[in-house]
Amino acid sequence: MTIKDKYKQVRQETMAFCDHLKIEDYAIQVVQFASPAKWHLAHTTWFFETFLLKKYVTDYKEFDVHFNYLFNSYYNNVGDRILQNNRGNMSRPSTDKVLEYRKYVDEKMMGFLQSTADKKKIDLVILGLNHEQQHQELLKTDVKYMLGHNPIFPEFNSAYNLVNDKNESTESLKIDAGIYEIGHPTDAFCYDNELGVHKVYVDDFTINNFLVTNGDYMAFMEDGGYTDFNIWLDEGWNWVNKNEINSPMYWHKIDGEWHYYTLAGLQKVEKEAILCHINYYEATAFAEWQGMRLPTEFEWEIASKQLNWGKRWEWTNSAYLPYPKFEKENGAVGEYNGKFMSNKMVLRGASVATSPDHSRPTYRNFFNPVERWQYTGIRLAKK
Amino acid sequence: MTIKDKYKQVRQETMAFCDHLKIEDYAIQVVQFASPAKWHLAHTTWFFETFLLKKYVTDYKEFDVHFNYLFNSYYNNVGDRILQNNRGNMSRPSTDKVLEYRKYVDEKMMGFLQSTADKKKIDLVILGLNHEQQHQELLKTDVKYMLGHNPIFPEFNSAYNLVNDKNESTESLKIDAGIYEIGHPTDAFCYDNELGVHKVYVDDFTINNFLVTNGDYMAFMEDGGYTDFNIWLDEGWNWVNKNEINSPMYWHKIDGEWHYYTLAGLQKVEKEAILCHINYYEATAFAEWQGMRLPTEFEWEIASKQLNWGKRWEWTNSAYLPYPKFEKENGAVGEYNGKFMSNKMVLRGASVATSPDHSRPTYRNFFNPVERWQYTGIRLAKK
Amino acid sequence: MTIKDKYKQVRQETMAFCDHLKIEDYAIQVVQFASPAKWHLAHTTWFFETFLLKKYVTDYKEFDVHFNYLFNSYYNNVGDRILQNNRGNMSRPSTDKVLEYRKYVDEKMMGFLQSTADKKKIDLVILGLNHEQQHQELLKTDVKYMLGHNPIFPEFNSAYNLVNDKNESTESLKIDAGIYEIGHPTDAFCYDNELGVHKVYVDDFTINNFLVTNGDYMAFMEDGGYTDFNIWLDEGWNWVNKNEINSPMYWHKIDGEWHYYTLAGLQKVEKEAILCHINYYEATAFAEWQGMRLPTEFEWEIASKQLNWGKRWEWTNSAYLPYPKFEKENGAVGEYNGKFMSNKMVLRGASVATSPDHSRPTYRNFFNPVERWQYTGIRLAKK
Amino acid sequence: MTIKDKYKQVRQETMAFCDHLKIEDYAIQVVQFASPAKWHLAHTTWFFETFLLKKYVTDYKEFDVHFNYLFNSYYNNVGDRILQNNRGNMSRPSTDKVLEYRKYVDEKMMGFLQSTADKKKIDLVILGLNHEQQHQELLKTDVKYMLGHNPIFPEFNSAYNLVNDKNESTESLKIDAGIYEIGHPTDAFCYDNELGVHKVYVDDFTINNFLVTNGDYMAFMEDGGYTDFNIWLDEGWNWVNKNEINSPMYWHKIDGEWHYYTLAGLQKVEKEAILCHINYYEATAFAEWQGMRLPTEFEWEIASKQLNWGKRWEWTNSAYLPYPKFEKENGAVGEYNGKFMSNKMVLRGASVATSPDHSRPTYRNFFNPVERWQYTGIRLAKK
Repeated sequence: MTIKDKYKQVRQETMAFCDHLKIEDYAIQVVQFASPAKWHLAHTTWFFETFLLKKYVTDYKEFDVHFNYLFNSYYNNVGDRILQNNRGNMSRPSTDKVLEYRKYVDEKMMGFLQSTADKKKIDLVILGLNHEQQHQELLKTDVKYMLGHNPIFPEFNSAYNLVNDKNESTESLKIDAGIYEIGHPTDAFCYDNELGVHKVYVDDFTINNFLVTNGDYMAFMEDGGYTDFNIWLDEGWNWVNKNEINSPMYWHKIDGEWHYYTLAGLQKVEKEAILCHINYYEATAFAEWQGMRLPTEFEWEIASKQLNWGKRWEWTNSAYLPYPKFEKENGAVGEYNGKFMSNKMVLRGASVATSPDHSRPTYRNFFNPVERWQYTGIRLAKK
Repeated sequence: MTIKDKYKQVRQETMAFCDHLKIEDYAIQVVQFASPAKWHLAHTTWFFETFLLKKYVTDYKEFDVHFNYLFNSYYNNVGDRILQNNRGNMSRPSTDKVLEYRKYVDEKMMGFLQSTADKKKIDLVILGLNHEQQHQELLKTDVKYMLGHNPIFPEFNSAYNLVNDKNESTESLKIDAGIYEIGHPTDAFCYDNELGVHKVYVDDFTINNFLVTNGDYMAFMEDGGYTDFNIWLDEGWNWVNKNEINSPMYWHKIDGEWHYYTLAGLQKVEKEAILCHINYYEATAFAEWQGMRLPTEFEWEIASKQLNWGKRWEWTNSAYLPYPKFEKENGAVGEYNGKFMSNKMVLRGASVATSPDHSRPTYRNFFNPVERWQYTGIRLAKK
Repeated sequence: MTIKDKYKQVRQETMAFCDHLKIEDYAIQVVQFASPAKWHLAHTTWFFETFLLKKYVTDYKEFDVHFNYLFNSYYNNVGDRILQNNRGNMSRPSTDKVLEYRKYVDEKMMGFLQSTADKKKIDLVILGLNHEQQHQELLKTDVKYMLGHNPIFPEFNSAYNLVNDKNESTESLKIDAGIYEIGHPTDAFCYDNELGVHKVYVDDFTINNFLVTNGDYMAFMEDGGYTDFNIWLDEGWNWVNKNEINSPMYWHKIDGEWHYYTLAGLQKVEKEAILCHINYYEATAFAEWQGMRLPTEFEWEIASKQLNWGKRWEWTNSAYLPYPKFEKENGAVGEYNGKFMSNKMVLRGASVATSPDHSRPTYRNFFNPVERWQYTGIRLAKK
Repeated sequence: MTIKDKYKQVRQETMAFCDHLKIEDYAIQVVQFASPAKWHLAHTTWFFETFLLKKYVTDYKEFDVHFNYLFNSYYNNVGDRILQNNRGNMSRPSTDKVLEYRKYVDEKMMGFLQSTADKKKIDLVILGLNHEQQHQELLKTDVKYMLGHNPIFPEFNSAYNLVNDKNESTESLKIDAGIYEIGHPTDAFCYDNELGVHKVYVDDFTINNFLVTNGDYMAFMEDGGYTDFNIWLDEGWNWVNKNEINSPMYWHKIDGEWHYYTLAGLQKVEKEAILCHINYYEATAFAEWQGMRLPTEFEWEIASKQLNWGKRWEWTNSAYLPYPKFEKENGAVGEYNGKFMSNKMVLRGASVATSPDHSRPTYRNFFNPVERWQYTGIRLAKK
């Protein structure tokens, strides 16, 4: 596929999801970490405008001089920006205006891609497309958060449940101790945090070729999982008590039966489906209850060739820290990953909300251990 | 005017203001005290549905069973409701749905008004219309708050400045000491907090027949008004320092000149226009700086026949407390006013945003002393 | 009594209460509004040092140059000071040092009083003594707060219960409508907020010559007083729910019976004793439940000659606002009262913790409506 | 040394530090993480009473039934406890009472140690002594925090500066890539988090045999270290800005010169002395500025035999996570370490405040990356 076709495809995929949104859905921000749809549409466009058009296209006329302030996410190198918490306070620019912005930038990008073959620039375009694919996933999880916290539980799209996947295996894999190579090995696209193939020693371990199901987790809940402090990390136990947590996110007990909000509306929890929307604390408590543990990200990567994966982001027991050969690029692009390397845990795999060509065995996703609005699940391992 | 015509007129006036809103403008809540436009449209409708249609119309079919939970404001007698802070978290029901709701209830109300002449019921309809008129004003101030806190300062309506009124007099009035009667004297509509004509003794006083202007206030600012603790109430001084206040709400110094956001967009501050958007603390500090004071609500009411008023709500130096003969009605209607009688100050008059037939000399408006998003101004008095 | 004798007496009374304190008791601050005993001892001394010795005694040598910063309470005119919330963070200066400070200042004050007959200066000394008497009461309530919030409920002094007073009358008084004079009428000491005798018109009213008892309040509690929103002010209802309040401060239900913490330790609630430690919201809810109301401060003052009072500070239904002839002094002394005139309610009378010669019918005490750590009670009135 | 002698020695060392405290110093808690001295004295005693005397001594009479509630730190298995934040709210039990408690438990422990040779019990005693040694260090850092945040900067002990150590080397060490063994290798005492010797592969690396000095850090500060966002982790940059940080903890610029608070009082910063009181964010920003990085805890442990260490806890770039063979004990003792394994970074080495026989190359200290009240420093490494 040419870069122009790829560009068109990715940009179009973003809009495809939005078909089922009402105008009001684009504007609202319910919580700091979940941005309005309108913001995602504009921010991904801003990326191309800022890092390519404004930099490399002579006489490029900025679509709107306020947009850098409004739609910069976290790049200190690109100037001031509104607080993340205020993204939902702005009814204007309206969605119409943002769609105009996308169209304007897309046209300019077509011209730009027509005339450029410079690898460094094309690499930045590819980074921009991967960036947009990340936001496609956030768009889905953020819309779910907004609608799932609306007391009337609006159905987004009856054909779009996203949480009904089942395991395809019941086996476990045994992997031998030894030195393994970790990190992205080819010239294909990857993020800077995956780079630098390096050796890691791991002991013998066993890893499940399946994820924890809703039924498994209900057994944990029925066995008092949320009340037995001995299986929880201290921070997790405080979180449970302070927030009176007794189930995964989006679960509601109605007339004695567990339901969950899905993008297809409120539904009964399906026991055989893979568990979703739990955080690192819940994942470790469940593992402890099972007498097992989470795999490290190295164990996961080593086993990945033999694993079924891709239905849920899987919490690992590895903190998000730099690989030994990690090098930060200069300037704004260097802010992409490295500066977030504290107080985050690595998730491996990919989820049902991940763009299909945006997953690979070396991918290092990362979130704060308390978060659970992503499509997150649990795979267990042991010695 | 018949009650039916009055009903149609008031309901239509609410919609007239909305002509200049974009769909996104209806949904957003920037701060707890300023509700989304969509919520105002639905809540005023809920009032008629709840207190009239559901109560007095046989076989009335509720428009949507969730709406009582979503659009009850503060009536404990009518059941649970979403937190005030969460009104802006709901993209659904959409604005379209809320407009359908208005239409549905309006049709039913027309039928109801056709068939009813019962005074108690008509009085409730009149209360509902006055309630809607209050929300018309809140709608204007809340939209201004949302747009005025948007960093791009969107113009709402170029013909709708609202803050360019001038004084029509430079005189002061002298009023003699004596016993005066205070409270609503006729059978015309008023709120329960105005009822019970009663005697009040006041000393001699002088009251200005004009309000403080922007130019007056700029002189105060230039003279260090915001840095001289001796003229501030203790709570006011803490508020100034904690929030780094140095001007009225909506004022911005741009290239050395004061501008303010108006519904017609950002404009230079007009010195001759009447000052607006200051709170009780600023009002008392300004008065102290001038060697004068705010009038009490009794002084204001006594002087009102001779005063020019109606351009700005005027802070008085009276706390919002019950009149000697105040009586709370039973049930939900009794929650309208009485329960807010603590930590509020009385404002008298009316503002440019007040519905024209919704003002009278006995009207007791009230807000927390810290608030300044209403169209509030300063009238001075002295012994 | 000479001013020297009066000075010695008041200063000694402060120390008398401290006999039962342990050294650790002097240092701790549990909550912002309740200062450490050590701080009270130093602050009252600082008042004499700052407003008299440093100003009027030639060659006076300040005891410690840091003390102005440490022990200024709220006088902006006297310079910066530590945040009120941090008073309990300072183990040093130790209590020993503070007692040295008192001794040092007392000696200098004796010399000063020996040599001065200037009325203005003596008036300031009298203000300082009244100030110290106010802090004597705060010392008692603040120590009670600290010990009463200690889970082991330490006994302070077995002979010092303070909450066992009974009513001496069961009568009510009827007062006729008319114009009455309000305010401090003589040349004797009073605060600036009492000054300016002025006329007030009141309607006929009836006022109880007794206060609400614990037994009365238990009946209110048993009748669901804390769960019936219709009798509560809106702010009060929020306070009850947010803090899960179901009894007065210091009450604990133990084995099915109500106990309260007193300075003599934990005891069974005595039904006949006068109710204590309730706030304005509880006072108004109780009155509403009884079908009565709180008196205004004017009604209270008018009735005071015929009333039994002095056992508890009595919440009135008057906001703390300036009298018509109120004038603020220049400089620090002007900060004593006037700047607190917002969001406070007036309490009249005096309490068991009030210094005996520090009460009079015109005294205007004031607290935020939410506070209840003072010795506060309820007197009812009606039309 | 016999276990009885060891017990006496450790318990005595705790008291030795307290000689310079005033009674008020024992009681105060300035911030949640720094407990009052009195609490440390009681809590370490509670450990022996709870895990040994109450469990293994027949007819042991608890000193005070409230003490389990008051002095349990974080052991859920041992029941409810006061909130960590409230430790400083309790003036009682007084310090005298706590010293009685220590004496009482010490006597009982002497009897117990006389009569017991059971290894499991003796191991618990040794754990209790190591626990007390940890609290000896916290006692020193917590007292420093309290006095160092007192605006008069009280001198604790003029002979006890603690921050004037110098480096003894200017060399760097080169270590070859390979598989190394990590973890506590002998039968001597260590914590459970050090157990399970296991293989780790590390690449070639270079590590300094000296720590960063105050002079080095001043160069960083002068070069704009606190204002260049590119060298900071995102969380660190937010911390700097929110708290307006521009120097290490305890540093104050006075008349243009940097001073720091030490336990010997306020002193000029000594340039040659080893830097202290910086957090993980500052450590990583400094390393980034130097073009180097922090070592991992594995690199540190591998290099430790050749390193000078012991003057400051050294931030590593390793998150505090379980070793592959980590096993949690059952019951309360299992809560000692494992449950804190999230959002913490490992520190290696020991500090001047560490008990001399309480350090070893495998020791894994851990703190939240934001903390800097411990004696923390920076050692740099690179490829």
